[in-house]
Amino acid sequence: MNDAAMTVDLVGSGNVAYHLAHRFGSVGIKLRHVYARDLANLADFPSGFTAQTFTEISRHTADVVVILAVSDDAIPAIAEKIPNNCVVMHTSGSVALNALTQTHRAVLYPLQSFSRARNVDWHNLPIITEASTDNAFNVVQSIAQHLSTRVEHFNSAQRLHLHLAAVMVNNLVNHLFGLSAGYLHSQQLPFDLLHPLIRETAAKVGEMQPLDAQTGPAKRNDQTTIDRHLALLQNHPDAHAVYQLLTEQIIRIHHERQL
Amino acid sequence: MNDAAMTVDLVGSGNVAYHLAHRFGSVGIKLRHVYARDLANLADFPSGFTAQTFTEISRHTADVVVILAVSDDAIPAIAEKIPNNCVVMHTSGSVALNALTQTHRAVLYPLQSFSRARNVDWHNLPIITEASTDNAFNVVQSIAQHLSTRVEHFNSAQRLHLHLAAVMVNNLVNHLFGLSAGYLHSQQLPFDLLHPLIRETAAKVGEMQPLDAQTGPAKRNDQTTIDRHLALLQNHPDAHAVYQLLTEQIIRIHHERQL
Repeated sequence: MNDAAMTVDLVGSGNVAYHLAHRFGSVGIKLRHVYARDLANLADFPSGFTAQTFTEISRHTADVVVILAVSDDAIPAIAEKIPNNCVVMHTSGSVALNALTQTHRAVLYPLQSFSRARNVDWHNLPIITEASTDNAFNVVQSIAQHLSTRVEHFNSAQRLHLHLAAVMVNNLVNHLFGLSAGYLHSQQLPFDLLHPLIRETAAKVGEMQPLDAQTGPAKRNDQTTIDRHLALLQNHPDAHAVYQLLTEQIIRIHHERQL
Repeated sequence: MNDAAMTVDLVGSGNVAYHLAHRFGSVGIKLRHVYARDLANLADFPSGFTAQTFTEISRHTADVVVILAVSDDAIPAIAEKIPNNCVVMHTSGSVALNALTQTHRAVLYPLQSFSRARNVDWHNLPIITEASTDNAFNVVQSIAQHLSTRVEHFNSAQRLHLHLAAVMVNNLVNHLFGLSAGYLHSQQLPFDLLHPLIRETAAKVGEMQPLDAQTGPAKRNDQTTIDRHLALLQNHPDAHAVYQLLTEQIIRIHHERQL
């Protein structure tokens, strides 16, 4: 990566932009401009860049890479303001590379859930890249390899598969946490008693396949316990429906596995 | 806890018995006998106790506490072999205290998922206790407080609520991991790319309520992404049904929340 490419402009002020800006500072990537709809959202960004409003984007010069860390919906409208001779990349899991129209376009998708308040372990964070040209490939790979040791190059279809799988283990799993917390709350019991179990469940799947890690009443087809659980959930229709559907699937999958 | 009570007998050779036996050694609780259906399963237990088969249980003397770390189904049949003047406790989340018939009966339920191959962080592990008499209460509290700093005394109904909530965040969540892994496998993509995200999802719920931690296409009611995901899952009926049900619930819950 030459010196010019080591300077980047960033569009966005959300959690991904925030963590990218901080990470760029630690790995020696120079941040020139950060474009934000509302400059107040840049107050907790690291210093050293020029804050710009979105209306300034079209004045962008072609010698600097532009990274769009904005919501999926906002990508096309912002991308079309950027000159065609820039290298432009977005950071979305589900938006196709071709949502960008520049010749040298790329994707840099960090496969993680970012919160302002939580530190990011960049070192082992998988970064999924994609690029339209050799030039764009070289630029996005170099940036990604500065950010993390784990960089994987996939096409848009593969990235969408990963994004879907990520939604299941992140958004849908978090909904299960919510159902569980809501149930305990209704019984005046503290959800934090489950934190060690939640962490262990997550850690375990890093060491064995989920099918092998499966335990519990559904795996054992323990109808007595299942029926008692379903009876307790009678006034919790969401949790009841989820418990019933997932339990039926676990019973069937592990029954078929034994045949 | 007097010296006699510091000596315990343990019934079972599964993962809970295995980790209890090791923990007893580190916190100064003396293990006298371990009763196992198959003595070969005690090979990786710490040394210092006498291994006994189940048929020896009825010869048990009354001055030692007996801890049943066996499967739920096995508890009643084993308990009835134990003399009535023993303090007897089981370690199950879903079996009532009164499944034991001794006068001094108790429950010591460690709210965690135990695997032989994984270390247990006992220090912060919630232990749920219950007891039938002051004597049983004193014994089970003393043992639990030796094992962990977090001991909570609840009745059988409350423990069952906790067990149900635990099944949701452990067994049902692990099934979501399995659906996600199966989908990626069908696309020749590695599931381990999701490990950092899975760990972060679990860590995050330790710092904020699940409802506040919710993100993703369902939370945003992003029908374009949801429809593309559902189309990708067309040949994965289990994952499709789960994705659809949970997504509908998230959309409704977060819509109602905004009203």
